[in-house]
Amino acid sequence: MPNNTNDQRRIELGTRKDKQTVVIARTLSDVTNLVTPGTFVLFVKEACEKDSMLMVSEAIRRGAIGILFEKTGRLDHGIVAASELGVPITSLNKNIEQLDTGELYKGVRKLLSEIKNIADSAPAEENFIPTVHPVKINLGFPITLSKFPALSKLVDGVAFARLEFVITEIIKGEHPLAYISRTSERKFISLLAEQLTIIAKEFSGKPVWFRTDDFCANQLLTLIGGKEREVFEANEYLGWRGIRRSLDQPSWITLQFLAIKELVDKGFDNIGIFPPMTSSVEEYLQWIKLAEKAGLNSKIVKFGIMVETPACALTFEDFTPHLSFVVFGTNDLTQFTLAIDRSNPRLENKFIENSKAVLALMKRVITICKENNIETTVGGQAGFNVDFIKELLGYGLTGTSVTPRPATIQKFKKLFQEYEKNN
Amino acid sequence: MPNNTNDQRRIELGTRKDKQTVVIARTLSDVTNLVTPGTFVLFVKEACEKDSMLMVSEAIRRGAIGILFEKTGRLDHGIVAASELGVPITSLNKNIEQLDTGELYKGVRKLLSEIKNIADSAPAEENFIPTVHPVKINLGFPITLSKFPALSKLVDGVAFARLEFVITEIIKGEHPLAYISRTSERKFISLLAEQLTIIAKEFSGKPVWFRTDDFCANQLLTLIGGKEREVFEANEYLGWRGIRRSLDQPSWITLQFLAIKELVDKGFDNIGIFPPMTSSVEEYLQWIKLAEKAGLNSKIVKFGIMVETPACALTFEDFTPHLSFVVFGTNDLTQFTLAIDRSNPRLENKFIENSKAVLALMKRVITICKENNIETTVGGQAGFNVDFIKELLGYGLTGTSVTPRPATIQKFKKLFQEYEKNN
Repeated sequence: MPNNTNDQRRIELGTRKDKQTVVIARTLSDVTNLVTPGTFVLFVKEACEKDSMLMVSEAIRRGAIGILFEKTGRLDHGIVAASELGVPITSLNKNIEQLDTGELYKGVRKLLSEIKNIADSAPAEENFIPTVHPVKINLGFPITLSKFPALSKLVDGVAFARLEFVITEIIKGEHPLAYISRTSERKFISLLAEQLTIIAKEFSGKPVWFRTDDFCANQLLTLIGGKEREVFEANEYLGWRGIRRSLDQPSWITLQFLAIKELVDKGFDNIGIFPPMTSSVEEYLQWIKLAEKAGLNSKIVKFGIMVETPACALTFEDFTPHLSFVVFGTNDLTQFTLAIDRSNPRLENKFIENSKAVLALMKRVITICKENNIETTVGGQAGFNVDFIKELLGYGLTGTSVTPRPATIQKFKKLFQEYEKNN
Repeated sequence: MPNNTNDQRRIELGTRKDKQTVVIARTLSDVTNLVTPGTFVLFVKEACEKDSMLMVSEAIRRGAIGILFEKTGRLDHGIVAASELGVPITSLNKNIEQLDTGELYKGVRKLLSEIKNIADSAPAEENFIPTVHPVKINLGFPITLSKFPALSKLVDGVAFARLEFVITEIIKGEHPLAYISRTSERKFISLLAEQLTIIAKEFSGKPVWFRTDDFCANQLLTLIGGKEREVFEANEYLGWRGIRRSLDQPSWITLQFLAIKELVDKGFDNIGIFPPMTSSVEEYLQWIKLAEKAGLNSKIVKFGIMVETPACALTFEDFTPHLSFVVFGTNDLTQFTLAIDRSNPRLENKFIENSKAVLALMKRVITICKENNIETTVGGQAGFNVDFIKELLGYGLTGTSVTPRPATIQKFKKLFQEYEKNN
């Protein structure tokens, strides 16, 4: 396939009956500039140069039914987003220039068969399986609920709703601060509250935990209005993100707290909130103070934390008086503990979540939590790894949070049922 | 100062008597393409977009007597390199476009006065101060020895000679593998052995520990021949570097082992070697196996390790049977433990080496080392932090390794003398 200076291209594959459009894109603006062609398969060029979360979620919003990567690591946030949205991904491990149409079509057909698999994967038995150890889900895109309507019936709650995923539904390719200055803070709060209400309502009576945003600088840089507001970072995963950004931009994080306050005011009593990327209790207490300023407190919402930096795990006893739940960010905890980029395809075989060091940190936190009656949930992709979860149950893990698919939920429900019978 | 599409520019400042050339550069090739103008001050544009080690060391090799940064974090490897080379650095925290000539000249004058300070900093008392806790130095550029000839008289050895620093003296802006394919492996080994001999000889009778290379992908990408050999990484500090690269490129690391073997064959019995970025004992044992294949073993060189990933510290008991010394890479250990990029200027106030979590990991390793008679040395910039070192001495730290300046050495010698009198 010849090279082309115009990276965003469209290729039609297959016969008339079985036609499939492939859109080739290298940047987010290649996606946001799309004149929506109905459904299509997105082919992402050079994804491993950057995190693809915004690109992938925008493409799915615009009709992408499957994503092909030239090459990517399995824990890039674009993959996480597509997984939550029930959209399949395949990495071809080849540059588009090296592919002939036949190979490309093969990749597309593989995706299409996975789409069929996902649709078929709803298990026959669709009843709630009661377990002592809860099985919750990761759910940051409310639209997932329309794709899998049985979810709320099957699970014990939502342990991990990433606010940056929810927010992409509002900003639609625009930098959040650009969006707000074009519209208004009021509008942003009310749209965010609306999205969050969809989740809180669907799971009412069960806990729903929102994690405040964890946009990275280089992601935001690619958005409309990003260039004026962000500085490129040489190592964005170690950069100005998560709670650090929240504390430095109190007016921005406050909008998220105010949206959550609207839910509380509507009467929702099932809400928990927690921050990403915390590395000291001082940061955490400042974050709580901002939440309290916005009207939230531990009587009306639960406070929790994502444990994903080694520092947080190593000083966890400092946090216990201030929170009632922990969600493990196993992808990032592994990334920082091993010092291996989770989305670098070259290092994929060295990225091992259940390595001794990561397990030691998790055991430390779980043990302290058990003594202090704090709920522990695995929230990263490792939450779907059966052996890993079994090991952690032995330490006293409370439960897990999995990808929002009925089949996955039932698999873990049965695993826990079995475990509880034998232990 | 107007913008200019040609980034490499030259500005003459000051009066005839007091003239100073400033060279403005944005990329490594801006530096390697320099027609050497005698001495000059390098002004580095947009340094925080990337690690500046190669750019800074090349500039110093070509006559730079001081380095000005638009903006940089204090632990960028360019700063580390300049510090070892005794060349002062100032960050102006302003883009060149925002600077008028007066401000630029002020920055240059500040640098010039620091150059004078460094020259004056040789302490009056130049005798070796005997201490139980050794004070060693970081020394990766043999040319530093000609700048400070008293070094070998004052210290207890070289704990941290970065081979990537030594190698920059050979490759002079060319990718190592490009250099080798243009010349020969034999030539590279012999030039490297020559450089290493300068250090080993100067400190003969005292331990000299070489760390095998820790080039990062994006650094190498900027070298001549780099584009054909390297893939850009979104997070190079978490990337394919250190021992990972060594194990994946055994023929490359073997050249480093063979150069060290030449020193042993010449009769040097003061050599130790250690790898960077180890996160599991399996990696470490593979690295030792490659060293043994090249003719090295624990009877003729000492094996050690740099502890800089949380994983290494958390599983340290696995390493003890295989090594006799530890050098702490406190910059990287802090970076990964807190998940904060060491060279991101935006996060500088959050980058705290003596934070509780980092100290907990170091205490863990020092305690195990004490029980197993393994020598522990602090090798990062934190090695010059008096309070930090005092805390670690309390845990049982053996000694420290500081920047190669007589004044710094004597300061720590006296600190240890005092400590040993009182404890």
